Amino acid sequence: MAKAMVYIQSGGPTSVINTSLYGAIKEAQKHSEISHIYGSLNGIEGLLKDNIIDLGKEDPAQIELLKQTPGSILGTSRHKLPKDFHNEEYSKIIETCKKHNIGYVFVNGGNDSMDTCYKLSLLCKELNLDIKVMGVPKTVDNDLAETDHSNGFGSAAKYVINTTREIIADAQSYDRYKGYIIEVMGRNAGWLTAATDLLPEHARPDLIYLPENKFDTEKFVKKFGEIYEKKGICIVAISEGIDFERDETNVKVDSFGHKQLGGAASDLAKLINSRLGISVRAIELSLPQRAFSFLTSKVDSEEAEACGREAVKHAVEGMTGHMIAIKRLSDAPYKVEYKPVDISKIANVERKVPSTMMKDDSHMDASFKAYCEPLIKGELEIKMKDGIIETTLLKKVRV
Amino acid sequence: MAKAMVYIQSGGPTSVINTSLYGAIKEAQKHSEISHIYGSLNGIEGLLKDNIIDLGKEDPAQIELLKQTPGSILGTSRHKLPKDFHNEEYSKIIETCKKHNIGYVFVNGGNDSMDTCYKLSLLCKELNLDIKVMGVPKTVDNDLAETDHSNGFGSAAKYVINTTREIIADAQSYDRYKGYIIEVMGRNAGWLTAATDLLPEHARPDLIYLPENKFDTEKFVKKFGEIYEKKGICIVAISEGIDFERDETNVKVDSFGHKQLGGAASDLAKLINSRLGISVRAIELSLPQRAFSFLTSKVDSEEAEACGREAVKHAVEGMTGHMIAIKRLSDAPYKVEYKPVDISKIANVERKVPSTMMKDDSHMDASFKAYCEPLIKGELEIKMKDGIIETTLLKKVRV
Repeated sequence: MAKAMVYIQSGGPTSVINTSLYGAIKEAQKHSEISHIYGSLNGIEGLLKDNIIDLGKEDPAQIELLKQTPGSILGTSRHKLPKDFHNEEYSKIIETCKKHNIGYVFVNGGNDSMDTCYKLSLLCKELNLDIKVMGVPKTVDNDLAETDHSNGFGSAAKYVINTTREIIADAQSYDRYKGYIIEVMGRNAGWLTAATDLLPEHARPDLIYLPENKFDTEKFVKKFGEIYEKKGICIVAISEGIDFERDETNVKVDSFGHKQLGGAASDLAKLINSRLGISVRAIELSLPQRAFSFLTSKVDSEEAEACGREAVKHAVEGMTGHMIAIKRLSDAPYKVEYKPVDISKIANVERKVPSTMMKDDSHMDASFKAYCEPLIKGELEIKMKDGIIETTLLKKVRV
Repeated sequence: MAKAMVYIQSGGPTSVINTSLYGAIKEAQKHSEISHIYGSLNGIEGLLKDNIIDLGKEDPAQIELLKQTPGSILGTSRHKLPKDFHNEEYSKIIETCKKHNIGYVFVNGGNDSMDTCYKLSLLCKELNLDIKVMGVPKTVDNDLAETDHSNGFGSAAKYVINTTREIIADAQSYDRYKGYIIEVMGRNAGWLTAATDLLPEHARPDLIYLPENKFDTEKFVKKFGEIYEKKGICIVAISEGIDFERDETNVKVDSFGHKQLGGAASDLAKLINSRLGISVRAIELSLPQRAFSFLTSKVDSEEAEACGREAVKHAVEGMTGHMIAIKRLSDAPYKVEYKPVDISKIANVERKVPSTMMKDDSHMDASFKAYCEPLIKGELEIKMKDGIIETTLLKKVRV
């Protein structure tokens, strides 16, 4: 008997999070096992509060626009499910699933979201419920385990690389040079910052700092001064989460226990200014880097759609408790295949940049370039109306 | 007898500053009156220090790429020429011009740069030198007088509008809403901030603040609180130069006497947090907004090229001491003509957003929309190589 599916978007948006949803919708329409295509509003909270919409009632033209729509169209959340399956949150989720005859749950998110996905799949098995729970990878941080890379990373890397290029061109326009510190997303994994090293040598950061390495403040000040002395300019890219000793008495902590970081570039700029007397501009790439439609990588977009499709295909075949992983077959020509991976291996695990991909503490190894380059390739043709991006508007009809 | 021309880029970069240079080069190639096409490195400092390059020796393919190259390819400066024509700086400039048989000087810049242009044209007249000095308009701030708008504004507005759209989509993804304050360039004129009001009503800032209006802190806190109360979210766009009472004891001042502002969004975010207890994210659009190739407006690009061409055309016909202004003939269909304007009317004058274009202190009048909308239309096709923008590399052969 056909059952409904519900799709959950979880964690921070990416340029292609809505593209995976698009893929799942298009695939689901082909399968008679799926009676209805629902969306959960604001992540897992939609199932908790019975805020479910019928995506089948949306205009197909709006569904097409998902591929260039920034943000998480269904809304997201960072809610963490409790450990104890007897907690009433689980009863509420089960109740919502039963009420709407839901047989398929898809969770599109990063490693915290895969924790949600894992718990739901365990619960369904334990209660012997016929609900298949599948994960779709997503994170600009690229720190999901068991997959070559995550949907969203390629586009974010493309944004970070090209925006850094523009900032460096701007900096190089002046002959009274100064310092620039560019702050890139990445709490514990420096994949995005590392990507700036793909720029041509005359227009790339002089120094890059990833959270994977111990940050040595004295060494940083010394190197900065030496480069500035030699070139009259010094451009640095850092991950927001670099291991920099700061006054953290007022730092906020979110529900997953992560510190709400930010301002590392600004703090380091002040440090250089006070120690070397060099004027330094701090630039935080901030929110646009994680979901900027105009620099979506075509490879990333196609893979995000494919992961949404694959999750649906495997779910209707009876699979549960797995995430669709991307397995790279070759760098050049770039080839991948999609492979479901047991979600217990992924939930709450962080994959960092391996030290073998770093040449030294300022630049990346050729192996990183070979890894990253295919992921930023190709451009999407963005539909504009009078100079402004067209985005999906959903009716969000509740069920 | 044919003479050489020299082209000067001055002030901050825009997305189309190199496009005006492209237009000037292409036009100059058609005129036998022009013997050589030179570029002055780092603005007026190139003439002061005899750092002149021969653009005729560059690869034509690199010249074509100028139209999508960020930054000021010749380098820029903010050097202000002295008032006294007997100052040795003027002797040095004249010396460089004589040495290279320069008969045409083009200054591409904003109102400070038009001051440079004005002084040079006066000097040449006073000394009876056969050197024509012409201005090409450029400023993302759109504050040049005597022209409907300035080259660079349309593209910067397009960036600010679309990036604000992405930030709002990101903000709307969360149900635990908060506040966002987006800081846009504009020291004394709020044209760029005003442009965010072109977004559709469901995805535009709730409040916008321009430097043209007195900023009332108490009224701001009250309005922010009311909107947050009603919608659970409040999104504000402000100009960097809003009239906000801050501790300015440590603010730096540049050579034109302008305060080096920045951080208004961050200060206001702290204010809202301390007064209303609402968590507010401050986002400074920073350098990318003024020269982001990927959101170049086609209209802006075409007009920038045309202004470069027109300046050359008029100079070879014997005109001096004028800037090419854009005169709007109609909004819809959008039509303009190019008209040289006496530069004494432009130098050091700032054109602000007229109060008639504001509906109230939160939104713009329909007349602003009619004014701004045509300027952001149309997209450039950007050439990419392996996911990274291709930019001009000049050999910069000295003469």
